[in-house]
Amino acid sequence: MTLSEPRTTQETPAKEGVSRRALLGTAGATGLVLGAAGAGVGYAAAPDGATPLTSVGADEVAFHVKHQPGILQGLQARGHVVAFDLAAGAGRTEATALMRRWSRTAERLMAGEASERGDTGIALDAGPSALTITFGFGHSFFARTGLEKQRPVALDPLPSFSSDHLDKARSDGDLWVQIGANDALVAFHALRAIQKDAGSAAKVRWQMNGFNRSPGATAHPMTARNLMGQMDGTRNPKPSEADFDRRIFVPASGSENPAWMANGSYAVVRRIRMLLDDWEKLSLAAQEQVIGRRKADGAALSGGSETTAMDLEKTDANGDLVVPLNAHARISRPDQNGGAAMLRRPFSFHDGIDPDGTPDAGLLFICWQADPLRGFVTVQRKLDRGDALSKYIRHESSGLFAVPGGAEKGGYVGQGLLEG
Amino acid sequence: MTLSEPRTTQETPAKEGVSRRALLGTAGATGLVLGAAGAGVGYAAAPDGATPLTSVGADEVAFHVKHQPGILQGLQARGHVVAFDLAAGAGRTEATALMRRWSRTAERLMAGEASERGDTGIALDAGPSALTITFGFGHSFFARTGLEKQRPVALDPLPSFSSDHLDKARSDGDLWVQIGANDALVAFHALRAIQKDAGSAAKVRWQMNGFNRSPGATAHPMTARNLMGQMDGTRNPKPSEADFDRRIFVPASGSENPAWMANGSYAVVRRIRMLLDDWEKLSLAAQEQVIGRRKADGAALSGGSETTAMDLEKTDANGDLVVPLNAHARISRPDQNGGAAMLRRPFSFHDGIDPDGTPDAGLLFICWQADPLRGFVTVQRKLDRGDALSKYIRHESSGLFAVPGGAEKGGYVGQGLLEG
Repeated sequence: MTLSEPRTTQETPAKEGVSRRALLGTAGATGLVLGAAGAGVGYAAAPDGATPLTSVGADEVAFHVKHQPGILQGLQARGHVVAFDLAAGAGRTEATALMRRWSRTAERLMAGEASERGDTGIALDAGPSALTITFGFGHSFFARTGLEKQRPVALDPLPSFSSDHLDKARSDGDLWVQIGANDALVAFHALRAIQKDAGSAAKVRWQMNGFNRSPGATAHPMTARNLMGQMDGTRNPKPSEADFDRRIFVPASGSENPAWMANGSYAVVRRIRMLLDDWEKLSLAAQEQVIGRRKADGAALSGGSETTAMDLEKTDANGDLVVPLNAHARISRPDQNGGAAMLRRPFSFHDGIDPDGTPDAGLLFICWQADPLRGFVTVQRKLDRGDALSKYIRHESSGLFAVPGGAEKGGYVGQGLLEG
Repeated sequence: MTLSEPRTTQETPAKEGVSRRALLGTAGATGLVLGAAGAGVGYAAAPDGATPLTSVGADEVAFHVKHQPGILQGLQARGHVVAFDLAAGAGRTEATALMRRWSRTAERLMAGEASERGDTGIALDAGPSALTITFGFGHSFFARTGLEKQRPVALDPLPSFSSDHLDKARSDGDLWVQIGANDALVAFHALRAIQKDAGSAAKVRWQMNGFNRSPGATAHPMTARNLMGQMDGTRNPKPSEADFDRRIFVPASGSENPAWMANGSYAVVRRIRMLLDDWEKLSLAAQEQVIGRRKADGAALSGGSETTAMDLEKTDANGDLVVPLNAHARISRPDQNGGAAMLRRPFSFHDGIDPDGTPDAGLLFICWQADPLRGFVTVQRKLDRGDALSKYIRHESSGLFAVPGGAEKGGYVGQGLLEG
């Protein structure tokens, strides 16, 4: 049972931010595993006496990078998103101190170290496990801190969509933190540390948990699969594409954004409930008509493989379009939306069952873009008018957050805003 | 980022039930990863053209084994437990058909195959990922199926404990299913398949989710750690111990159990909420006094390492016992409880936050024993009278289930009961 694995990088491989330490860990672990594999026994000490970290644990993401961690990294097996509201009486001073504490904690935990303020010990024994901690500011943050003039226009409230069934108590918030890791205890440890840091300055407004496939669970260089069983993210923009940065990140200059958002991005966060009992009653063929792609391999119904371009005009023997006009994958295509693109980086969620026995499960949708109006809003408006999938999903919460660029060495996230 | 890992087997290594297919997968994957490691690229095809499964995915547990799977296997990263009640009007005939369907589904899914009845596709691309599905019968099952005479005495209701705050709606049930896997989508896929199989014969009574550390997240041959940050399971009985089988499994003959329970075990399932906000206010030293062990390495406060025997008499300079009389680890010792022993195989749980902001998190306690009165009840009675930990936990639900031995080839779980 001692196995080796390539790491799952899915559609959004890291362009940056994986430290040399993790790579060094790799070589050490590989050699040891080979020695122990035949015997099928436990762990061996490294030559220098230290126990080496193994695959999942050794992955380490750097905190001080151009774009905050948790945007470009591959999907993680476990995630938490949590929104905070500043406490009554807390303002810019308290927020500044909090962002300093949070940044310090993020830097330490992402390096596999303990937090400075009464570490809970939950992550003891484990490596960083690709932990990322990402911070954002919501619309309401700016009035509470007297920073209205620094509020980006892009944070103006999203329009309403006919499919929205939003719970205000689980939407929005002054501050937003996204935590992801390939180990559930490492992620929970970070969540508790972030909550402890909040102290009397901020209170949790809402909090949600999610998950993705474990690294190594599949040998396919696959797109993620969601709880409807569909591949999800096939057409996600790729860092290798020429216009990727322009679409996903705020430029350092020359945009309508305030200067403190340079290299930042905007996150739209939605709890999208899947009506799985209804969905699973559909035949496979009916599900594929709704999506416009084959379930097994994600190929468009017009043929080919997952990456083959969709033939929007192709008709069958009866003259009907093989990819229906209301198919989700047709409507959401960037070339059907003026080039709109967002980087989707979701988690699935499953919070048990409702009293009537239906699963409280779906997609913790998180997407990233330089401009929400040209990204999420453009696509969602189109979907809102005719997506065949809309019968099987329900948007239950919504948040929009300004996520500044990564902190400089010695600095903290949001420093340009809070000290600007 | 292409890494290798030893598999985490923790305290309860499998004695049986890992198929040759998984081991063959190992060799194949290892060779390929070595080839790809330097390049840092994705996945390579196996020589025969098939894509090999990788570490986590390749682990496969056999369904037809002496003891049901999910008892002796190492802790899994993701788990679901779900209880069903037979539908009104359903009796022995419907229950028999259901156990046949469930067993067939468990066999297929544990081998990485699709279910026979409208597979959802959620596990497509992934290997079995150490999936186990385990079935049990609750006290109420027997009257509903006219099988009262076959009901084991060991299923008599557990006594009440002063620390119980039990929610009846989340306790007990006619039927119980435990699902575990090292991939969250594989586990959810199994849960949905089991629910679909239930059809009109049974309805979900309650359902809970849990998790453990991911394989490879740590390089230590460690005992599990819980959400209080404590090592949990240090004194778990080990399959290598002479009396392990006698304590954990019902013998094939010579006990008070009905014949259909041969090679079976009894599972006690409790949702133990941890009052983490209170717990985390304690200093590290205070927490260690409550437990009686050091947090970092699990060693008894009397010294040594995790496996060093606890010195119950050792005193400090003031003459006080270094392991307090009410320390959890002292009170729960088998040698303090007439040799009582149970195999604890829990998941942690975290279901977000309560309206007051406190985390709804703790231990999904699952323990296995040949006799609940000599296992769980003996220890819990002792804890109930003086465990220092009791201030920081709350038992919120309870179930007791008879888990028969594994199904024979061509047979199904519970056949000896339902056709006996």
